[in-house]
Amino acid sequence: MQLVTADLAVSLDGVAAGRDQSREYPFGAHVRGRITQPWMLEHPEENRAEIDAIVDAGAFIMGRNMFGADRGEWDLDWQGWWGPEPPYHGPVFVLAHRPRPDLVMEGGTTFHFVTDGPEAALERAREAAGERNVSIAGGPGTTNAYLAMNLIDELRLHVVPITLGEGIRVFDGVPDLTLVPVSSRTTPAVTHLTWRRPVD
Amino acid sequence: MQLVTADLAVSLDGVAAGRDQSREYPFGAHVRGRITQPWMLEHPEENRAEIDAIVDAGAFIMGRNMFGADRGEWDLDWQGWWGPEPPYHGPVFVLAHRPRPDLVMEGGTTFHFVTDGPEAALERAREAAGERNVSIAGGPGTTNAYLAMNLIDELRLHVVPITLGEGIRVFDGVPDLTLVPVSSRTTPAVTHLTWRRPVD
Repeated sequence: MQLVTADLAVSLDGVAAGRDQSREYPFGAHVRGRITQPWMLEHPEENRAEIDAIVDAGAFIMGRNMFGADRGEWDLDWQGWWGPEPPYHGPVFVLAHRPRPDLVMEGGTTFHFVTDGPEAALERAREAAGERNVSIAGGPGTTNAYLAMNLIDELRLHVVPITLGEGIRVFDGVPDLTLVPVSSRTTPAVTHLTWRRPVD
Repeated sequence: MQLVTADLAVSLDGVAAGRDQSREYPFGAHVRGRITQPWMLEHPEENRAEIDAIVDAGAFIMGRNMFGADRGEWDLDWQGWWGPEPPYHGPVFVLAHRPRPDLVMEGGTTFHFVTDGPEAALERAREAAGERNVSIAGGPGTTNAYLAMNLIDELRLHVVPITLGEGIRVFDGVPDLTLVPVSSRTTPAVTHLTWRRPVD
């Protein structure tokens, strides 16, 4: 059965990104790589299953800030943070206010820029994913929007054992959610936690 | 080796208590029993090890609001939320601004009211606990104060799968903590997570 999944790396206090994103610092100058680097880059083998699952989907949805740091009019030279071959290898629907032509990358990733809202993006992603899952790829503003609409079937948080104090937190603006605990796994650098949406 | 431990039940968004505590609602009218009841009262057998560990210490420290809902001058008729035989069965040091005589309860619990601050309370609790652990018993304001001083050796969060949106959160005012992940266990009602303070 097709699931809508979402992965976020967060600090102990739930911060998933800073508010001061720039091209130099995709997560902001305060957060930097502190919630991803310790497990994704420094200990990938110990966290292989969870890292691989992040991009194991038939289609992806991300917010504009997950795609780039520019605001307002598109900088058409910007093609995302990931270089010529992004790790998605499938269609990625980017939530945007301004239209932009599809951006075809190497390795099967195509960025589609969707201007008619998160529900329309999800519909397109569900269709594009076929029998595979749809992944809400972040950032936290986008994840929280889908959580608030109760459209995420499986939420996976990767909790890095530091506090950051400020930034955009998972569950901001999501006051009345109820999930079901599914699994947890602790590795030396991170705690992987999974919840599911209750069956209707 | 004696450890300083701390247990808190929290929501997905980290809320451990409301700001509207009253005698009727020890956790506030919004939070009520929603972060404790689903696992401590409704499914105690599935969570037995973690529940038992909460009171497995030689001495305890709690904030005044964990002891009672009155503010200002003591209501000397109030003897805590737990009835004649509290579950601590040992000395409990209550952080307070106003002195109050020791309160001896049945079953070995004695409440001592400490007016010279959290570090002095910890010193007294360490001494009283002998070789056993000292437990920081909450509420979240007290736990956060000890976390901010980096005096907690083992932090155990019990994450109930709901969001609450507002209230006092674990890690509020604790911006630069670094811990080490130790363990995690998921039961149908709650996720039990343990971290340790890094070895100096």
